[in-house]
Amino acid sequence: MRAAQRKEMKMLEILHMNKGAGETSYAMNSSVQNRIISCGEEARKKAIMEILCSNWVEKMSIADLGCSSGPNALRVISEIVDGVYATTGLLEQPAPNELVVYLNDLFTNDFNNIFASLPTFYRKHTQDKGTSFPSCFVSAVPGTFYGRLFPTNTLHFVHSSSSLHWLSQVPDGLVDGCGRGLNKGKIYISESSPECVVDAYSEQFKNDFSKFLASRSQEMVTGGRMVLSLLGRLSMDPTTPHSCYQWELLARSLMTMSSEGLVEEEKVDSFDAPYYAPCFEELKMEIEKEGSFMVDEHEAYEIDWDAGWELESDSTMGRPLSSGERVARTIRAVVESMLESHFGCHIMDELFRRFAQMVEDHLSNTRTKYINLVISLIKQDTN
Amino acid sequence: MRAAQRKEMKMLEILHMNKGAGETSYAMNSSVQNRIISCGEEARKKAIMEILCSNWVEKMSIADLGCSSGPNALRVISEIVDGVYATTGLLEQPAPNELVVYLNDLFTNDFNNIFASLPTFYRKHTQDKGTSFPSCFVSAVPGTFYGRLFPTNTLHFVHSSSSLHWLSQVPDGLVDGCGRGLNKGKIYISESSPECVVDAYSEQFKNDFSKFLASRSQEMVTGGRMVLSLLGRLSMDPTTPHSCYQWELLARSLMTMSSEGLVEEEKVDSFDAPYYAPCFEELKMEIEKEGSFMVDEHEAYEIDWDAGWELESDSTMGRPLSSGERVARTIRAVVESMLESHFGCHIMDELFRRFAQMVEDHLSNTRTKYINLVISLIKQDTN
Repeated sequence: MRAAQRKEMKMLEILHMNKGAGETSYAMNSSVQNRIISCGEEARKKAIMEILCSNWVEKMSIADLGCSSGPNALRVISEIVDGVYATTGLLEQPAPNELVVYLNDLFTNDFNNIFASLPTFYRKHTQDKGTSFPSCFVSAVPGTFYGRLFPTNTLHFVHSSSSLHWLSQVPDGLVDGCGRGLNKGKIYISESSPECVVDAYSEQFKNDFSKFLASRSQEMVTGGRMVLSLLGRLSMDPTTPHSCYQWELLARSLMTMSSEGLVEEEKVDSFDAPYYAPCFEELKMEIEKEGSFMVDEHEAYEIDWDAGWELESDSTMGRPLSSGERVARTIRAVVESMLESHFGCHIMDELFRRFAQMVEDHLSNTRTKYINLVISLIKQDTN
Repeated sequence: MRAAQRKEMKMLEILHMNKGAGETSYAMNSSVQNRIISCGEEARKKAIMEILCSNWVEKMSIADLGCSSGPNALRVISEIVDGVYATTGLLEQPAPNELVVYLNDLFTNDFNNIFASLPTFYRKHTQDKGTSFPSCFVSAVPGTFYGRLFPTNTLHFVHSSSSLHWLSQVPDGLVDGCGRGLNKGKIYISESSPECVVDAYSEQFKNDFSKFLASRSQEMVTGGRMVLSLLGRLSMDPTTPHSCYQWELLARSLMTMSSEGLVEEEKVDSFDAPYYAPCFEELKMEIEKEGSFMVDEHEAYEIDWDAGWELESDSTMGRPLSSGERVARTIRAVVESMLESHFGCHIMDELFRRFAQMVEDHLSNTRTKYINLVISLIKQDTN
C-alpha cells in the first residue's frame, strides 16, 4: 500500500463524531449542522421537482453522503421522502413505485444509533401516507465518498451536508525533510501560514473533490441531481476569518497550554486539521475539469457559530451556557476524535475550557460567522 | 396498529445476539453457527455456479439475511465473493462487472461491529484479486425478513443461515382467556405441551415462512437462487428431542429455580420462545402453496450441541470448560436478550449455571444433536 493510501486509511479509521448521547456527544451538539441542513432545503425541493418532472422514475434512488448519526441523520431523508410525496401530489402524477434510500458515512460512524430510530421512521411513513405511498427501503453504505460506494448508473439524487469540507487525509507537504511541522503554532491555514501550507491544503481539496465528482459521475444516472452543502468562503483568500477563525482560536488555545508546558509545542506544529473551506470558484473549476456535471444554482449562507442552540444550562454548573461554551461544545463533538488521537485525551477538558473563553472574548468584539455554500449540480449525458 | 403488529414490533426491538466481545458475547460464542454455515457450503457453491452458468449478469446482487455480527457476519459473503471469482475462472467466462452485497439483520443487530471489519475485507478483496475482479459494494439493510427489505426484481442470490428458526413473534394462542400461560412449566413445545400449543407454534411458523417467501418472491429475479439453512427436525413429530431438548432443559432449569422461590412459576408458564424447528415436509408445503419457488435440493446435517468449540478455559476458573458449559454459553449468547426482558437480568448467571449442569448430565447419557436443514430454491417465472 502506498504511504498516501495508508494515511487516508488511518484518517478514515480515526475520524468520527463523538458517540453516545452524553454532554460532549455529537447527538447533543449538532444544532449548527441542523441549521446548515435547513440552508439546503430550497435546493433539495427544486432538485426533487426536476427529477420527478423529467421522466417517470419507477425506482427512485437517493443517497445522503456523510449522514452522521444523532437527530440529524434521518432528518434529511424524512424531508426528501416527504418531498417526493408532496411533489407528485402537486404535479398530479403517480409517485415512483419504490424509493431506495442509502445512508453513507465512514466505517466508524455510529450506524447502530440510526438503525434504532428506523422502526419509528417506517411507522410514521406508513401511518402518514398509507399504502398509496411508494415502498421505502433504507440501507447503510459505509465507506469514504472519495471513492466508489454504489454500483454504476444507480442514483437519481445525491445529497451531502456538512461533510465535503472534511478532507480524505491531512495534506501531504506540511512537514519539512526532518519531519518537523511547517505550519508552526497553527492547525489549519492561518494568516501567518507559509505559502506552501496554503498550496498543500488547496491541492488536497482539489484532489479529493475531483475524486468525489468522478465517483458520483459513474454512480448517477443522466439527469440525476446533486445538492452539496459545505462550509466555505466568499473571498478568494483562504485566510479570511470566516473560513478559518475557529481553527485559529483552537490553535491559540493549544499554544497557551504549550506555553505553560501542558502540551509540547512540536505536537501543535505537527498537527494539521484534515479540513478545507473552499470558495465557489474552486468548486466550479473542479466541476468543469471533471466534466460530467453542470452547475444549476449556488448560494451562500451566513451561519452563527452557535446557530440553532436552544437556551440550555450547563448540567454540572446549573447556569446557562455562554455562547463561547456553546461553540466549544459544537466543535468538540466533531473534532475531539482526531485531537485525542494526536494529543491524548487528558488535555481535552482543559483545551475546550480555554477555547470556550477565547471564543467568548472573540465574539464579544466581532460576529465572525461560518459561510455555508450550497451548490446544485445536474448529471450530464457523458456517453 | 393491530395487537399482532405491536407484538411483532416488540419482539424485533428485543431480540438480538449478546453484544460486545466479552465472555457471554455472541462474537465469542458463535462456533455452532459457524459449523452450521459450513453445512451450506456445497449448496452455495452449486447455486453460484448455476446463476453464473445461466446468463451473464452485469451486476450481481447477493443478500445474506440474518447475518448477525461477530466473526461469522462477513464469513459467508467473503466465501460467496470468492466463489464468484473461482467459478467464473472455471467457466472461463467474464465475471459480473459489479457485486452488490446486502447484509441484513434486525434493527438492534450490532452493525457497527461488522462495519469495523469492512476496511480489512475490502483491502483483502483488492489485494487478493487485483483490479481484474469486479467492484464489490457492501451495504446493510436492517429490518425483519418477514417483510419486504429490497426493491422489486433486485436479488440474484439469497442466503440465510441460523435465522429462519426464529419466529417474528411469540405465537398467539399460548394464553387462556385470563392471560394465564397454557404451556405450563415449559418454554417451547414439549412432550407434555397441550395440542393447542403445538398448533399455535406450527401456525406461526407457516404464517412467517409464507411471508418470507412472498417477500423474496418479489425481490428476486427469475432464475435467482436461494439457500436456506435452519435448525429443524427429520421426524414429523415436533416433540422429537433433536428439535426441542435444549428448550426442555432450559425450562427445567427455570423450574428448579421456581421450586426454590427464585423465579415465579407463572413467569415460566407465560414465557414462550419465538422459535420453531420445522421438518422438510412443512417447508415444502409452504413453498408449494406460495408457488414462486421450486425446490432444487435439500439435505439434513447432524450438529453437536457444542460443535466447533476449540478447547477453551474458563477465564475466571482457569480450568477447561465442560461440554455443558460450552453449550450453555452458546445458547446464552443467543437467547439472553429475550429471557432478560421477561425474567430480569439478575437470574441469568444462576440460570445458565444450572442449565450447564443439566446439559452436562444429559449429554453424559445421550448424544442429542441439532438437526440443521439446508434447502436450495430456484425462483420461477411467475409472470
